[in-house]
Amino acid sequence: MIRVGVMGAAGYLGGELLRLLLGHPGTTIAQAVSTRFPGRRADSVHPNLRGQTDLVFTAPDELKTCDVLLTATPHRATMTLLPEVRGRAGTVIDLSGDFRNPDPAVYERYYGAPHTAPELLGAFVPGIPEMYRAELAAADLISVPGCAATAATLALLPLAGLVRPDVQIDARTGSSGSGALAGAANLHAERSGAMRVFAPVRHRHEAEVSRLTGLHARMTATGVEAVRGVQVVCHATGTADERTLRRAYRERYADEPFVRVVAHRTGAHRLPDPKLLSGSNYCDVGFAVDGDRVTAIAALDNLVKGGAGAAVQCLNIRAGEPETLGLGFPGLHPV
Amino acid sequence: MIRVGVMGAAGYLGGELLRLLLGHPGTTIAQAVSTRFPGRRADSVHPNLRGQTDLVFTAPDELKTCDVLLTATPHRATMTLLPEVRGRAGTVIDLSGDFRNPDPAVYERYYGAPHTAPELLGAFVPGIPEMYRAELAAADLISVPGCAATAATLALLPLAGLVRPDVQIDARTGSSGSGALAGAANLHAERSGAMRVFAPVRHRHEAEVSRLTGLHARMTATGVEAVRGVQVVCHATGTADERTLRRAYRERYADEPFVRVVAHRTGAHRLPDPKLLSGSNYCDVGFAVDGDRVTAIAALDNLVKGGAGAAVQCLNIRAGEPETLGLGFPGLHPV
Amino acid sequence: MIRVGVMGAAGYLGGELLRLLLGHPGTTIAQAVSTRFPGRRADSVHPNLRGQTDLVFTAPDELKTCDVLLTATPHRATMTLLPEVRGRAGTVIDLSGDFRNPDPAVYERYYGAPHTAPELLGAFVPGIPEMYRAELAAADLISVPGCAATAATLALLPLAGLVRPDVQIDARTGSSGSGALAGAANLHAERSGAMRVFAPVRHRHEAEVSRLTGLHARMTATGVEAVRGVQVVCHATGTADERTLRRAYRERYADEPFVRVVAHRTGAHRLPDPKLLSGSNYCDVGFAVDGDRVTAIAALDNLVKGGAGAAVQCLNIRAGEPETLGLGFPGLHPV
Amino acid sequence: MIRVGVMGAAGYLGGELLRLLLGHPGTTIAQAVSTRFPGRRADSVHPNLRGQTDLVFTAPDELKTCDVLLTATPHRATMTLLPEVRGRAGTVIDLSGDFRNPDPAVYERYYGAPHTAPELLGAFVPGIPEMYRAELAAADLISVPGCAATAATLALLPLAGLVRPDVQIDARTGSSGSGALAGAANLHAERSGAMRVFAPVRHRHEAEVSRLTGLHARMTATGVEAVRGVQVVCHATGTADERTLRRAYRERYADEPFVRVVAHRTGAHRLPDPKLLSGSNYCDVGFAVDGDRVTAIAALDNLVKGGAGAAVQCLNIRAGEPETLGLGFPGLHPV
Repeated sequence: MIRVGVMGAAGYLGGELLRLLLGHPGTTIAQAVSTRFPGRRADSVHPNLRGQTDLVFTAPDELKTCDVLLTATPHRATMTLLPEVRGRAGTVIDLSGDFRNPDPAVYERYYGAPHTAPELLGAFVPGIPEMYRAELAAADLISVPGCAATAATLALLPLAGLVRPDVQIDARTGSSGSGALAGAANLHAERSGAMRVFAPVRHRHEAEVSRLTGLHARMTATGVEAVRGVQVVCHATGTADERTLRRAYRERYADEPFVRVVAHRTGAHRLPDPKLLSGSNYCDVGFAVDGDRVTAIAALDNLVKGGAGAAVQCLNIRAGEPETLGLGFPGLHPV
Repeated sequence: MIRVGVMGAAGYLGGELLRLLLGHPGTTIAQAVSTRFPGRRADSVHPNLRGQTDLVFTAPDELKTCDVLLTATPHRATMTLLPEVRGRAGTVIDLSGDFRNPDPAVYERYYGAPHTAPELLGAFVPGIPEMYRAELAAADLISVPGCAATAATLALLPLAGLVRPDVQIDARTGSSGSGALAGAANLHAERSGAMRVFAPVRHRHEAEVSRLTGLHARMTATGVEAVRGVQVVCHATGTADERTLRRAYRERYADEPFVRVVAHRTGAHRLPDPKLLSGSNYCDVGFAVDGDRVTAIAALDNLVKGGAGAAVQCLNIRAGEPETLGLGFPGLHPV
Repeated sequence: MIRVGVMGAAGYLGGELLRLLLGHPGTTIAQAVSTRFPGRRADSVHPNLRGQTDLVFTAPDELKTCDVLLTATPHRATMTLLPEVRGRAGTVIDLSGDFRNPDPAVYERYYGAPHTAPELLGAFVPGIPEMYRAELAAADLISVPGCAATAATLALLPLAGLVRPDVQIDARTGSSGSGALAGAANLHAERSGAMRVFAPVRHRHEAEVSRLTGLHARMTATGVEAVRGVQVVCHATGTADERTLRRAYRERYADEPFVRVVAHRTGAHRLPDPKLLSGSNYCDVGFAVDGDRVTAIAALDNLVKGGAGAAVQCLNIRAGEPETLGLGFPGLHPV
Repeated sequence: MIRVGVMGAAGYLGGELLRLLLGHPGTTIAQAVSTRFPGRRADSVHPNLRGQTDLVFTAPDELKTCDVLLTATPHRATMTLLPEVRGRAGTVIDLSGDFRNPDPAVYERYYGAPHTAPELLGAFVPGIPEMYRAELAAADLISVPGCAATAATLALLPLAGLVRPDVQIDARTGSSGSGALAGAANLHAERSGAMRVFAPVRHRHEAEVSRLTGLHARMTATGVEAVRGVQVVCHATGTADERTLRRAYRERYADEPFVRVVAHRTGAHRLPDPKLLSGSNYCDVGFAVDGDRVTAIAALDNLVKGGAGAAVQCLNIRAGEPETLGLGFPGLHPV
């Protein structure tokens, strides 16, 4: 059994990590650390875990060694924390935004503060198995990309060489992305039914997409009515026709267990919709073309394939386990 | 023009008071008081008022005299505040819970604290024109009932003498009832899609219903997915048949401008649904009968007929204006 | 491997049966029958099954023999169908409403038509393991109760002897209960955000609750904003105190794998909420007491514990498999 | 009083026309025509009109003359209908898609059928007062643009000369845009919580935007969780800085009663959100800039400023009435 520690275990990503690990036949939770709720039962914070576990949160200063440490701690706090805790585990998989961009200048530009552990940035392998499977199998430091970055990257990867480099990405996100500590703007009465353009330009994840895809990505982001889910609609231009594009998508993802090509010509479910993916580790990708205009679309659950599920997938790869272990939930319909 | 002051103007009820008063041809807003946001434009807090007003919030200690003062301030704080400010206006209409129950023991039982201005309790006329129109025309102190209390009272009034006194009321409410200062349990990710039984027994408004109707009312309350809206389903027993009940409802509300009897036998809209009433001052009431079982149903917008709209209706009555002035919005469909 | 046939496989319950059976290690789907879509891939109708199966629907007249036949066909049609197909399988588990009430007069009263197979009614064991586990282990005909009936029955069972027989049940349901063939009243624009009292008195499931619990149950039902989920709030009277009730609930369900007692004094999740149970086979039950008033509450996913999950649980019992096999998904939070 | 006839009065746009006309001090409804429901009360179909009117729908063949005829009839049917009925009124204001594009080839390309009344196409003035106020004052034939076309056009107009011609528009829409006759894909259980990219390329309204703005517009469209509301996010490139853009927006709309510039740097309501506009005739427009990237955003209620409200605004202009008459509802918050 792989002994796994979770930091930030009382947050939304932390809760999903616990859910997935509890259902995983090859892992045991060594420790669930919460700064806010040490001493409280995990199922008092994550009520879906009632009957699944008697786990109690521990304080950060009680952290013990384990095989794999998953850090689902806040941006900025994590770059301070990580150098302190990396010695406690053979592998650290970070879900925060702090180690996603290898260039500290990019970090500062998008996160508004200088990076305090720039020497570590180059050591992280991006937690996106569809690109870095071999490296992940040997990585000691893994950084799971942002949820919209993973979605956009998977939407765009098959287009390499088929579209011009300038890509405009339109991301739509659910409210869980704001976390369990969100403020008054995320009260239900304020956020319900909203179409809130919270990043009309320069969403943080655009830098990750540019780096991962080699394209020049720009991203806007809008909060829409949903708790979970990210959808990206990517606007590109190129000359490939529909048949070429379809082949590119099919070939790129033929062997991927968690990427499905969803690009039908008709039907209510013809293109990726995150509503179908709640709780699942799938990223659905699709496309459409009209003349020189190519639209690439992806959907995922921000807390699973966009976070905790990707982390467990990386953990499986790193540990030499079957990649899909513990990640079998397919999502619901209708829902 | 009636000069109206609003205290608690940055809250949700305060915002609705401003909206209704700005659209009211017979009133002018003398002052909008906010403890939290003195000096800020009202439309920065209530964005639906953009283009409607340049009003700026003032601090509580700047309160001036006016003709009518509307207090939409928090429970407990209001019983302290009201004795201080009642001299500033000929009429005070209170929307808080502090002056709804004439008996201070009832207040303490349901609000968990002794009343600090018990001498005033008897002086308030309930702000429910369907029962107290004549008294309201001369009242200096008016207390608008709780939103679920108004709904249940209007649902039950026609049943006087037709049902046994024990009545079980099941209230369902939207999230705006928790106010603009609600806590983490009301974050969108937590509250969205919920069916949260927050008062399985002894909801505060049951005491008001008992007092207003003379019945022995018990109330449970559940938060459901909605921002606005209260619906009550009241379970009673009696021997009246459908025809008798229909006549009782029709006669009771024949002359009421804001109560509609909605009790069809079929159709998606056969019975009261608050979704149709957002922004309107209607309370729809209906009923059904099966043997000795009588179900009475009412729906309203908690911020309008359950709060700000009722206050403006009372203001109109007190001022001798047409009762419907400024309250003409009928609600939307579909919505 | 148990060979399972599913009739009505293109409906919502049918889709959930397929999802659960595909994830079940002890079953294989012998056939998925659809009257509407013979020849179409199952994942074209249930898009969450993409990548899970290549199953194609067959026509009803192609039905072959199998070990267990699950009928998720419409009310009224099923009572004609079942006598024709029961010979095709050793065990038939019916999810329709047609075989839930042993008395044909009760059926006619609640379903508005005479029963056409009254001779079979007495042969069905109710598919509620918490009451009929031993009988289910040997049953050839099983009828899964209505979703609200299961919820109310599980909420009320521990109160046997502790409350008076008259019980008023208030059920709230999501839109999936209307099925994939629902009409214009269930269009999103009409149904969204609704609080639609579609059964102000005499909901069909009340007869089932009365029969299963021995109480005299009355049920109202309201459609609220949700796709999945049933919550019942049951109003009873009695003299038991909180401690007695807590013990009764705990003891009654101490060994039940899919019933959790959720009855905290505070917190956003203090009482059962179906939002946490989407996709899971749990039924959460809770209670509160105020004087002689007892409120019992239950929540479940109408398509799982209220339908397909209960059927699979019964199948496991009948087949001598571990009862929880294939039913491990715990639900999500936040969601 | 202006005598107004409404065709298609039982649809969603028809219902909003009735609501607005009933609240309009200068109009009287001469006739409300419904093909589906002749003889039924209008408030049986539009339940928000209960207590507002006793109007009964008439059949199409009973159409009489009136001053202004509003046609809210389906696409394709309207191009046949309009030549037949235009003689019944001095002014016809059409809300369908059939007379929006002056070029019949464009119509055929986007609507998939040849136009049957091409000789009329050039006679229609677009019902967008912000561009055609003078022409509307004398127009006999007016065609209200598509909801997303109006939003995008108003978002983009101030950018004339400031951005390059290629513009990518991302539209998000509520479910009411599919109309009261929508099919199974719009059932609540299917459509709820969806992010459904129903037009990944070449949404119909892009041709209108190109014509109205002189830009080369491409539009994608996604159905998101909302009943009402359209939001467009337009991606353009140019060299203007923030100050220049702000001035351009302010100047362009300085005198417009129904366009508000909403472009704050922070806050939950910093940019246009249709949730605030339900029932109101406002179109909010805003923008943001990052280097050479300009994002323009607009929001409106598809049934009001995107349909019925625009029609009434045009009617006011044509009749020489104050333009805002009957259109005073400002929208709600929270909602």
